[in-house]
Amino acid sequence: MNKRPLIVITNDDGYNAKGFKELISVMRKLGDVLAISSDQPMSGMSHAVTIQTPLRVTQIVDEPGFQEFRSNGTPVDMVKLAKHSLLDRVPDLIVSGINHGSNASINIIYSGTMGAVLEAAIDGIPAIGFSLCDYPADADFGHAHEFIELISRKILADGLPKGIGLNVNIPKISDEPIKGIKVVRQAEARWVEDFEERTDPFRRKYYWMGGHFVNGDVREDTDEKALQDNYVSVVPVQIDFTAHNYVDKLKF
Amino acid sequence: MNKRPLIVITNDDGYNAKGFKELISVMRKLGDVLAISSDQPMSGMSHAVTIQTPLRVTQIVDEPGFQEFRSNGTPVDMVKLAKHSLLDRVPDLIVSGINHGSNASINIIYSGTMGAVLEAAIDGIPAIGFSLCDYPADADFGHAHEFIELISRKILADGLPKGIGLNVNIPKISDEPIKGIKVVRQAEARWVEDFEERTDPFRRKYYWMGGHFVNGDVREDTDEKALQDNYVSVVPVQIDFTAHNYVDKLKF
Repeated sequence: MNKRPLIVITNDDGYNAKGFKELISVMRKLGDVLAISSDQPMSGMSHAVTIQTPLRVTQIVDEPGFQEFRSNGTPVDMVKLAKHSLLDRVPDLIVSGINHGSNASINIIYSGTMGAVLEAAIDGIPAIGFSLCDYPADADFGHAHEFIELISRKILADGLPKGIGLNVNIPKISDEPIKGIKVVRQAEARWVEDFEERTDPFRRKYYWMGGHFVNGDVREDTDEKALQDNYVSVVPVQIDFTAHNYVDKLKF
Repeated sequence: MNKRPLIVITNDDGYNAKGFKELISVMRKLGDVLAISSDQPMSGMSHAVTIQTPLRVTQIVDEPGFQEFRSNGTPVDMVKLAKHSLLDRVPDLIVSGINHGSNASINIIYSGTMGAVLEAAIDGIPAIGFSLCDYPADADFGHAHEFIELISRKILADGLPKGIGLNVNIPKISDEPIKGIKVVRQAEARWVEDFEERTDPFRRKYYWMGGHFVNGDVREDTDEKALQDNYVSVVPVQIDFTAHNYVDKLKF
């Protein structure tokens, strides 16, 4: 009987992303791995699901203790596909990432990486999203490994309450060593968009979306503050959009 | 000087959806309207944003007090485009819908209709998502109009706190008149997926995602309970994924 934990890995940067490969390498030390990622980058896909078109899945690796698949779906689709069509038992842990770029604060709602984590949490499967606060395709993830392993081992041992996942963000590598791990809250920040208007060779206008990040949250116990102080930030997350403080104030 | 409120309308069922046209007809009674919808249905697109491809916008109506646009973007893109590229002033209200199908409970996180509402709320623009608990393309929205008008007039008059929007769901038409409006919380329910596995003419497998809705939440003050009792449900919503009750329990 196989006693090694079963770990599902997905991401939103596509199967070829460096962060995805590094997450696989860390997780293979901890258990049997099923990795499933998308043919195309899925950054910004949030909690999107594919309902207009059929999903396809191709197996690309089939070794003892390690299977890898690709699909045309979104990160949330990957979690659903793994649970319902690729596995014959419930995984012990679902991890997503390592994302190229921060998913702290408001970024969580745009993030396909965190969409997968929240989808797993709905089903009561312990799930963790790992993101590095650095974007380049060749970003250095080396300093992140020990924290990813430590946090994953703890959650494999302790579990998480049903409905709750973890949003873990890791500072970009620097000359200063990371100070530790802080459990914190989502900062109230936002993106201010910038649309660049261009004209194509056929004189039709088109727009590229850009933007800059604005954090006006001055509280001490937020993810943005922890990252700024060179800590790994861990936010326990759940899906409840209710503005509870306002429910009793709104009258019709 | 134009004193009529400026109202932006979007949805996730595409520009040709009956619910979108009916929402436009109600809103034109209340103010000047800019309507912008997608070329394709965007159900299930959640809070997705388009960052891999450029956005295009085509104006299809330009009348005094009513402008309509189409775009290849997602519902969240529509809100961003309207605010930053199509309008020269901040709208007084953003409404999304009328969605064909419920966005109560866990549906909010998959919903493009509610993605647009939450995006507007981040920017402090009062925003409301309207959904009918009935899916067909020719669904009867007639009984919804008076509630949509009443709720929209109230929010135009009173505003909403920054960061908060409304998720409004309206029961399917029946022989019983709707009993009224209830301000409630998001029920803790979920979808249990069902993947139908098929084989294409080239002997390749593909999957269609389906599922059924499971509500184990027995509280009295939820959106699902209000709808079941034939009330319009109104949930004030915000983006804060933090599981606040668990922050102090998790230790590293």
